[in-house]
Amino acid sequence: MAKHALDVFFNPKSVVVIGASNRVMKWGFLVFHNIVRGGYRGKLYPVNPNEKEVFGIKAYPNVKSIGRRLDLAVVIVPARAVPETLKECAEAGVKYAVIVPGGFSETGDGGRALEDEIVTIALSTGMRLVGPNTMGMYSSTSNLALLMPPIPLRPGNIGFLSESGNLGTTMMQSAIVNGLGFSRYVSVGNQADLKIYEFLQYFIDDNETNTILIYAEGLEEGREFLDVAKRLTRKKPVVVYKSGRSEAGKKAAASHVGALVGSDKVYGSAFRQAGVIRANHSFEMVDIASVLSRQPLPKGRRIGILTYGGGWGVIASDHCGMFNLEVPPLSTHVIEEMDKFMPPHWSRGNPIDTVGALDIDIFRRAVETILECDEIDGLLVLGLGVYSVFTHYYRTFSLLTNYQLSEMNSQLCDAEVEIAKDLVKFVDKYGKPVVVTSFAGGVVSDAARILQDNGVMNIPSPERAAKAMASLVEYSEYLKNSEEKGIRDKK
Amino acid sequence: MAKHALDVFFNPKSVVVIGASNRVMKWGFLVFHNIVRGGYRGKLYPVNPNEKEVFGIKAYPNVKSIGRRLDLAVVIVPARAVPETLKECAEAGVKYAVIVPGGFSETGDGGRALEDEIVTIALSTGMRLVGPNTMGMYSSTSNLALLMPPIPLRPGNIGFLSESGNLGTTMMQSAIVNGLGFSRYVSVGNQADLKIYEFLQYFIDDNETNTILIYAEGLEEGREFLDVAKRLTRKKPVVVYKSGRSEAGKKAAASHVGALVGSDKVYGSAFRQAGVIRANHSFEMVDIASVLSRQPLPKGRRIGILTYGGGWGVIASDHCGMFNLEVPPLSTHVIEEMDKFMPPHWSRGNPIDTVGALDIDIFRRAVETILECDEIDGLLVLGLGVYSVFTHYYRTFSLLTNYQLSEMNSQLCDAEVEIAKDLVKFVDKYGKPVVVTSFAGGVVSDAARILQDNGVMNIPSPERAAKAMASLVEYSEYLKNSEEKGIRDKK
Repeated sequence: MAKHALDVFFNPKSVVVIGASNRVMKWGFLVFHNIVRGGYRGKLYPVNPNEKEVFGIKAYPNVKSIGRRLDLAVVIVPARAVPETLKECAEAGVKYAVIVPGGFSETGDGGRALEDEIVTIALSTGMRLVGPNTMGMYSSTSNLALLMPPIPLRPGNIGFLSESGNLGTTMMQSAIVNGLGFSRYVSVGNQADLKIYEFLQYFIDDNETNTILIYAEGLEEGREFLDVAKRLTRKKPVVVYKSGRSEAGKKAAASHVGALVGSDKVYGSAFRQAGVIRANHSFEMVDIASVLSRQPLPKGRRIGILTYGGGWGVIASDHCGMFNLEVPPLSTHVIEEMDKFMPPHWSRGNPIDTVGALDIDIFRRAVETILECDEIDGLLVLGLGVYSVFTHYYRTFSLLTNYQLSEMNSQLCDAEVEIAKDLVKFVDKYGKPVVVTSFAGGVVSDAARILQDNGVMNIPSPERAAKAMASLVEYSEYLKNSEEKGIRDKK
Repeated sequence: MAKHALDVFFNPKSVVVIGASNRVMKWGFLVFHNIVRGGYRGKLYPVNPNEKEVFGIKAYPNVKSIGRRLDLAVVIVPARAVPETLKECAEAGVKYAVIVPGGFSETGDGGRALEDEIVTIALSTGMRLVGPNTMGMYSSTSNLALLMPPIPLRPGNIGFLSESGNLGTTMMQSAIVNGLGFSRYVSVGNQADLKIYEFLQYFIDDNETNTILIYAEGLEEGREFLDVAKRLTRKKPVVVYKSGRSEAGKKAAASHVGALVGSDKVYGSAFRQAGVIRANHSFEMVDIASVLSRQPLPKGRRIGILTYGGGWGVIASDHCGMFNLEVPPLSTHVIEEMDKFMPPHWSRGNPIDTVGALDIDIFRRAVETILECDEIDGLLVLGLGVYSVFTHYYRTFSLLTNYQLSEMNSQLCDAEVEIAKDLVKFVDKYGKPVVVTSFAGGVVSDAARILQDNGVMNIPSPERAAKAMASLVEYSEYLKNSEEKGIRDKK
């Protein structure tokens, strides 16, 4: 298969940073630092006429003086100087230019003229542009962290396109803190040249990417976007968080990236038809991408809810119902099985409430029974990890003796670790998705870490966990319907 | 004014823990530990026939043997032993009994009979009951942490009633981690005797409490609840998170606390009429209570949005619009004022986008200008604290020299601290509410700590911040309308 043109963009053999700086508070410093710190695998060239070297790497006064063809240029110069800089880049054979500064179409007519000028340069030279008004990109295969904010990066399988740089990096940070990783990230900026749908197209055959996440404001190339999305969603899930639902939001989007935002209802039904999953909240979009990226798809919409305590179970059921999931009662057979080990006052229904039993073995056996039975397609586990948090607090401020602490540790934390290990095995064995919710108040338990590392996500509220599970069901049903239609079409 | 009967419950001079234990994994251990560790100010008596002492405090074989009248008893014995225990308590003059075990009406007919039995004991003796099926209570004035899970407690002005013990303590933990404190907390359990509306009544004249937070499933005494709520909301805001919005949720609630859940639409309109603010998500209820408890009420619904970057501004505007807030354009006068110090490409509108300027003084002057002008009633500040987070990351994994780090620290963290201090002063000076959003990924900046300690809440997403601001506006308008009606009624 021929390589996609954007392969060079995501795997450049050489990167030049125009405006690289030794002055700590400059964007030219921050971006260059990230690239060096990220361990970029290709050749790196700082360009700055006032510096002899940047971070110990020889600096050049301009692009031409580097004297070799370059794959990717990062342009960190004032807006008015961008056209000249781009011409130099094109002459030096640069294939892609990432244009960081703002001051283009998002600022009005003057900026729009400047933006038209750089697009003309791109069209006449064949060099492609990202931005302007972008906060950069990341690619796991070349360890290229061409970003402004310092975030700890981690390779993974999520491809992420964002019309907002600050939202993009914040969401990446949030995801990475929760154990996720990314294959690619592009802050697309004003999309003067390269558009979201072009990057989207790249993901169709990108083996590094199994789930696509998009933050969109305008999506002006709606038809092209939907055409590509339809092809993509047959192979990989696409999650979109689209702002511009209210008039105030549309106005703000126009000022931010110069986007003309259409009717939200139209977007909504178009997304549904294309099998695009919609998120309604910034953090929700990470939740949904995380489970789609790491959990198996459910065969149906019958959800089991296993909980340490009643309230979370009620809230999870409530939201499952609101998202059209079923929380079916358990059969007599399963209830009889569970009667063998559950505490006397357990709920005998779904949610399966262990009513605060401190015997964690109960919880483990309950997980096993539910995932094994054929009445449930997916499981929400609420509370796992909380006993480790208790132990943390006892360690911090309790009157317990060391002996009591170690007893507690072995009965609670160690047991939760065992459950976590079993959960991971069960997901694999029974091919059913599991989503865990455990509010930890900043404490990361060993159990949570084991789950994270093995793709079982800890989503911090039952409402968000229910929504993530509903998205798995939605995508699973979309695929099923597509296949059935596919069969019908062939007849 | 005569003291409210529940004064004894929230300020008991003596507490007896029936079932107090030295065995680390028992609820009788955990509850007793919390009371001791919390520094309860009254007399504490463990009752356990098998222990000579618990935590070094002399234990008694039964309540009678203590030989004095007792204000409050905590009952941690198996369900079937509760009636006998309560009779002993009543004979010993106990005024309030908190009944921890489950196994009552929530489990079906047998449990319901047992629950009827204990209610009969209460009615015939005058002793009042909390629960059964409760996880306890907290009262700041007596330092009484009668709770099962170990959470770090903090006194404050929020009174919290919860139909779920595990949700209640999780939400308290979340609030406390974010700098909030509580005056009272009651896990009301099955409400066999004492109901939510009775506790609510206590809050009307409770000087310790300025904001009331409720998690409800059933609310079976709807009329009584609304009567009290109407009186209360004229003086103090009441926030309710009510589950049972879907059929699945209603069924789960019935199994959890035996609640019969009515139509959600009826609840919704009743809440509105009574001026009760409704939360739609567990964490949202803490957000809303936090701003109502600590921020001034806005005079109108015109919201300013000040942001480090465009995307968060768009999302905040979008959600302000969805919650019927206005994000008005700035007047020429204010734009001219801001032109004096803002970076060249700033948005010249609302959201006020500092377009990633690294000069933090710009941000401070912008805050001042907006809060001073009379075009804006409340301000969302997005991003404050993020530069401190950057610095944290640079400290953790960067190639920066110590000199560069200290330069960054003084320009970023120190400046953010100054802005935070100014913000606190401005809230006071201009009497306008400010809500901050800064996703910190687990890093607490000095700026965030200053804000927290002074009641300016950091709410972790722009969507949730917009909702919290909308709740301030909703309550402010309810009060205004009530006053106007009050005037009309008198004519």
